[in-house]
Amino acid sequence: MVKAILFDIDDTLFPSSEFAELARRNAIRAMIEMGIGRGEKELYEALMGVIRRKGSNYPNHFDLLCRKLGVKRPSRYVAAAVGAYHNTKTAIQPFPTVPRTLLALREKGYRLYVATNGEATKQWDKLIRLQIALFFEDVFVSEEMGEEKSASFFRKVLKDLNSRPGTRGIRPADCVMVGDREDADIAPAKAVGIRTIRIRTGKYSSTPSSADFRIGEFSEIERILNSLKTGKG
Amino acid sequence: MVKAILFDIDDTLFPSSEFAELARRNAIRAMIEMGIGRGEKELYEALMGVIRRKGSNYPNHFDLLCRKLGVKRPSRYVAAAVGAYHNTKTAIQPFPTVPRTLLALREKGYRLYVATNGEATKQWDKLIRLQIALFFEDVFVSEEMGEEKSASFFRKVLKDLNSRPGTRGIRPADCVMVGDREDADIAPAKAVGIRTIRIRTGKYSSTPSSADFRIGEFSEIERILNSLKTGKG
Repeated sequence: MVKAILFDIDDTLFPSSEFAELARRNAIRAMIEMGIGRGEKELYEALMGVIRRKGSNYPNHFDLLCRKLGVKRPSRYVAAAVGAYHNTKTAIQPFPTVPRTLLALREKGYRLYVATNGEATKQWDKLIRLQIALFFEDVFVSEEMGEEKSASFFRKVLKDLNSRPGTRGIRPADCVMVGDREDADIAPAKAVGIRTIRIRTGKYSSTPSSADFRIGEFSEIERILNSLKTGKG
Repeated sequence: MVKAILFDIDDTLFPSSEFAELARRNAIRAMIEMGIGRGEKELYEALMGVIRRKGSNYPNHFDLLCRKLGVKRPSRYVAAAVGAYHNTKTAIQPFPTVPRTLLALREKGYRLYVATNGEATKQWDKLIRLQIALFFEDVFVSEEMGEEKSASFFRKVLKDLNSRPGTRGIRPADCVMVGDREDADIAPAKAVGIRTIRIRTGKYSSTPSSADFRIGEFSEIERILNSLKTGKG
């Protein structure tokens, strides 16, 4: 019987790709507003070059962008860009049926967790801004688990759950993993026997999947869990 | 004749002490909301201890606070605190007559600058959030000047202004420094011959001052500049 449900965050609980794109656009527009004297297209392409080279978690994208473009006295443009970027990132909203569905799952007695790649504080910050942090017992995050989501990551999650009073004796088949990515969410969870639900959102929505269930909309999770309860899963 | 006006930022252009206090309070309340299980008084006092020891620009106050209190798995509390802190800090507003006064000064042909201690990007970020960044020609900030505000800092400012087309030949008496602190704003500017206006705001409002002029309200700057123009200053 399903007792615990694990959720990915980005593009599962909220449209993170859309917000990241908008945040970059807003950052560039703020630099132009501050008088950097370059066009939006040039700035955007240069920024994407920086992101490709340094990864999306590098903290000084805009400093590097200004250096690359030979901008003198860059502080005002960096400040404008970072401010606009964060204003956008802090305005994140969940997919519309997420809060209601999480509440319904809690009411039915499921224990909810997050399984995510990234930095612990940054991932908690997202849950807090989405106003859904209180629904989750805990967050399993790669920074603290010592590795990105993989079969071994999910084995550690199961071991950890087995060491806690509320979930002692829990087996892989008592868990469900919900996520948008075959490589990071579905395949590794499935490999250790966890049930899997693939949500078709974000940039990976049309890639093939080996998930037990596929949904287009978050609230469909309830229906799947009901079917598992009545033995039809 | 006065041509250039230099402004301090914190507690001169906006009530920074008030916002810092509110940001700390909000951060602590967010940790409590997240379930840290400690009282507001205990948390506040521990936080102030951390700030006293590490200084206010140290980036990891809340990590250290959690470590000091022996909090296990602190990420969720750190995220809640940092989020609430930044939400408050990004909601800063100028003293009510500041934008109108800066606009009036620009219309009268004065060149406006900022002279401030701190990090360049952080200080620009404040001006941008206060929606007054466009009024200023430039920001002279200790991080980029290589020293905190002192007589030597202001000598460098004068030298820099003299090297720019719009302010070539400018003399100390053609400049006015506006700030709330005797030690950082008034005394060092006065020492190099810059005229000084002390604004009585924030936590230093009742300390003695050697300023040429003292005001309780930002808009009074206009009156003082008018009197200097007509030779009564």
